[in-house]
Amino acid sequence: MAVYTQIGAETMARIIGEFDVGTLISAKGIAEGVSNSNWLVETADADGLTSRFILTMYESRVETGDLPFFLGLLDHLAERGCLVPRTIHDRDNRPFRFHDGKALALIEFLPGVSVSDPSPAQAHAVGHALAQIHIAAADFAGERDNSMSLAASKALLNACGDVGLASIDPKLPAIVGAALTELAADWPDGLPVSVIHADLFPDNVLMLGDAVSGLIDFYFACTDITAYDVAVTHAAWCFSEDGTSFDPKISRALLAGYEEVRRLEPGERQALPILARGAALRFLATRAYDWNNTPVGALVTPKDPMPFARRLEFYSDTANHALFEPAG
Amino acid sequence: MAVYTQIGAETMARIIGEFDVGTLISAKGIAEGVSNSNWLVETADADGLTSRFILTMYESRVETGDLPFFLGLLDHLAERGCLVPRTIHDRDNRPFRFHDGKALALIEFLPGVSVSDPSPAQAHAVGHALAQIHIAAADFAGERDNSMSLAASKALLNACGDVGLASIDPKLPAIVGAALTELAADWPDGLPVSVIHADLFPDNVLMLGDAVSGLIDFYFACTDITAYDVAVTHAAWCFSEDGTSFDPKISRALLAGYEEVRRLEPGERQALPILARGAALRFLATRAYDWNNTPVGALVTPKDPMPFARRLEFYSDTANHALFEPAG
Repeated sequence: MAVYTQIGAETMARIIGEFDVGTLISAKGIAEGVSNSNWLVETADADGLTSRFILTMYESRVETGDLPFFLGLLDHLAERGCLVPRTIHDRDNRPFRFHDGKALALIEFLPGVSVSDPSPAQAHAVGHALAQIHIAAADFAGERDNSMSLAASKALLNACGDVGLASIDPKLPAIVGAALTELAADWPDGLPVSVIHADLFPDNVLMLGDAVSGLIDFYFACTDITAYDVAVTHAAWCFSEDGTSFDPKISRALLAGYEEVRRLEPGERQALPILARGAALRFLATRAYDWNNTPVGALVTPKDPMPFARRLEFYSDTANHALFEPAG
Repeated sequence: MAVYTQIGAETMARIIGEFDVGTLISAKGIAEGVSNSNWLVETADADGLTSRFILTMYESRVETGDLPFFLGLLDHLAERGCLVPRTIHDRDNRPFRFHDGKALALIEFLPGVSVSDPSPAQAHAVGHALAQIHIAAADFAGERDNSMSLAASKALLNACGDVGLASIDPKLPAIVGAALTELAADWPDGLPVSVIHADLFPDNVLMLGDAVSGLIDFYFACTDITAYDVAVTHAAWCFSEDGTSFDPKISRALLAGYEEVRRLEPGERQALPILARGAALRFLATRAYDWNNTPVGALVTPKDPMPFARRLEFYSDTANHALFEPAG
């Protein structure tokens, strides 16, 4: 959460001048994005009509080679009426440019706020919007492997080792060991695959009241099991942040909203418990790795992994699997 | 430069609801302010017409007791046509409120960008806007002592001690010692006094092209020698950031712009060299103190004090005093 790069007003005006969006009238560094710098930019056209954009500079993690996929996906989805920000192409029709060796993109600004305590109506709207993306992405030509696949989670957890995991919580090595074995054995095969968001936490959804106004931050988007995206979103929305309390009303609303647009196949329904365990393990893995590898006094405080260990245990309890069965 | 406090969307909507500014539609934490948290907030009225504001939460340094002065000053100056943001009062007409024990204020958003490499035309506009403030503040009832007076600078420099100063640069104890002695002996008396901004660096001026669109960040504003504000602004605008190069064109334009609105008295002109030394010492003092007292690995990197030692030496050289004499 930081602006890593400083850009002076004169340079910013030159950068914005490379796009056909009018004259720069304001640019504020915003505290969003963990691995890139973002500015909320305002421009005015000749009549004084103002427009707003997010200028993103990619600092790390996001590979420049993936930008055509990420930015092309936004354009593809926006053209099909999905609530995602368009990429503004520059005067040479490039979706991203370079500045001082770093890639940068100008992206449509969307209104809305990220809720921290969602209501069932809001979860319903999120499920609806997620399914729209899955449908609209069907004819998107781009493909990208999931960089946070089960194998990647396993590699991060192995890098922590039992000692590293136990330093977080003495129970964690056993929880992780059991999950890795069972997920490797039972991970589903043959389910529908599509482009998925793969990180649709409340932070990445803009809302106006109960309506979704934008899905953002597609930098984990990839080609993977469609229902896995439902599972990630379920793990992200249906629990208190610390993972100790599950809200069945949010869960029902999310799945119902999703199925208004795209019905889950019986095999997908059946796989949701194990996909949800995989989703919980994926966020547990990155958090555990960051927890073990963030230097003391670093700019970013690592997030506690245990809330996702609790979700993992919740999804492992077969008594909870009924929630993934079709309603009534 | 950070957002220190996290405010969820639901809480933010409640806070904004305490003001008669429509419904919250967006809030982005912005990377501005060194001792407070700031959000760029957008609202919409019943007709969908949008407005923008800066929500500031005071984290430290700014004493709540001073807020009536700072915020009342903005209202006073804005009413008189100065280019400063208005304070938005809440539904009970309070200029600031409390949230979780911290004061917060909603302030008008002004367009514009802060230049890093000003032109003479821009410096002229800044001088003009500064003088407008000095004139418009004449009938402002509030008073506030300068918390960064010569005595305060001396206290900070004494706290560093010769050892602390020498750790920054071996020449610094001698430079500071000479300046403190001479400034204490020669600090002018009987010059016109008014409310001054006292910190008008390029960061605190919003510009659209060559025009000033806003003067911001009045949290050092106080009652002090009017011409001292001219000296602070001179030290802030007329040098390269590292203090090694002085631009006489910027200097002439700044003073000419100022005098278009408020003519400097002969005594003020005469005092500018020593006032400018005082201004350079003031920023040298806070930077030296922060340099000596910022823990390794802290969130904020302290700024190099030496650029202001160089300005101090520049202003101490009598060969440079001609620049403060009236033009032709």
